[in-house]
Amino acid sequence: MRIEVLRKSLFETNDKAASENRRILDEHGVVAVNIMGGAGCGKTTLLEGVIPHLRHDVGIGVLEGDLATTKDAERIAALDVPVVQLLTEGGCHLTATLVEQGLARLSLPQLDHVLIENVGNPICPVNFDLGEYARLAVLSVAEGDDKPAKYPYLYKAASRVVITKCDLLESCSFDLDHAVSDIHALNPDVPVYATSRKDFRTMMPLVGWLRSLCNREGITAIGLRHGAARRPN
Amino acid sequence: MRIEVLRKSLFETNDKAASENRRILDEHGVVAVNIMGGAGCGKTTLLEGVIPHLRHDVGIGVLEGDLATTKDAERIAALDVPVVQLLTEGGCHLTATLVEQGLARLSLPQLDHVLIENVGNPICPVNFDLGEYARLAVLSVAEGDDKPAKYPYLYKAASRVVITKCDLLESCSFDLDHAVSDIHALNPDVPVYATSRKDFRTMMPLVGWLRSLCNREGITAIGLRHGAARRPN
Repeated sequence: MRIEVLRKSLFETNDKAASENRRILDEHGVVAVNIMGGAGCGKTTLLEGVIPHLRHDVGIGVLEGDLATTKDAERIAALDVPVVQLLTEGGCHLTATLVEQGLARLSLPQLDHVLIENVGNPICPVNFDLGEYARLAVLSVAEGDDKPAKYPYLYKAASRVVITKCDLLESCSFDLDHAVSDIHALNPDVPVYATSRKDFRTMMPLVGWLRSLCNREGITAIGLRHGAARRPN
Repeated sequence: MRIEVLRKSLFETNDKAASENRRILDEHGVVAVNIMGGAGCGKTTLLEGVIPHLRHDVGIGVLEGDLATTKDAERIAALDVPVVQLLTEGGCHLTATLVEQGLARLSLPQLDHVLIENVGNPICPVNFDLGEYARLAVLSVAEGDDKPAKYPYLYKAASRVVITKCDLLESCSFDLDHAVSDIHALNPDVPVYATSRKDFRTMMPLVGWLRSLCNREGITAIGLRHGAARRPN
């Protein structure tokens, strides 16, 4: 019983900060995307793929979540976009409070998007609203086509799903149709993009979607909808 | 402040069950190995690789941790060893309490080893003692050679490290020496095995180590040492 009370309190603190983040982002007309997936699923590589195609006409800032290093932020800084490293110091997910601190370091009036790379973990980050507008779930072909069924909450809460490392489809015996079918069983109609770092053209649908978010409407409404739907039972 | 108190209470409950697990395992002369690593890093495939080489002269039982499905337990059951599926229902790690329930379903007098496959997550499981004798950390080549530095706690607490999917070394530009060097910076002298499901001979050092555990001494002493060392600050 006491444990339940504490979890509620922990979520309440997070939700309060998430609402504040949403308000600040909305005020500046900035769209935040929460990018989630397991360790090594290719989240940073995906950012390296799409940012060069966006940064000349879309103002992009990046928040990089990590347990213990600044390795990913260094890779993003090389793309010449503002980036802030959020260190969880062992924590398994980003919190809205940490994101709030990160947003304060970015010059929001100059931005259209804040791309938030969460900690590499397909489970815990899903439970924490960061105040984002959309959620991107990332699955690597090397993880296996059984993973959508095994980690359902990540896919249920996603606005878009990206399947990375598709150059390894054959060597990993990954059945793309099977994976997409399992994803759609969890989240009907969610668009799924198949990508490979070896062919950056595969990232263009994701680039197109991110660009389209600049013309979004009803940020708060959609944000709240995500907020309401995000917790697995 | 309240949050700290609760976390402590949560760990205390777990530690009590872990001690009880250790006592029961010790009483039956059974060695438990806690297998940890990210989603899709190849933990189940590793079990499929080593169990056929052990099961004729080593009594093996398996506890399979998963969020939502029995997929992995079905794969292990096909190897003709007793297996119990532990469902966390969304939880990001196994607890000693869940393992205690699993152990109660196994016929311990007939076993030498209990292999515990944790939930696919390189972060949270590390904080929970299950009463195990040894910890096996698993890293897939597809995750990238920067992951030991990025997820240090998993490697610090490991008795052995396995690097899987080594048939993908080249296509994933994975520098094995770099990864091993980073692992040894965290955990000097820990043996690291490089494996591939495409060549089961690569799993023989792991088979040899598991076999050697049947002749272990001082279970409780080593168990306690792990217990004391397991929490990242």
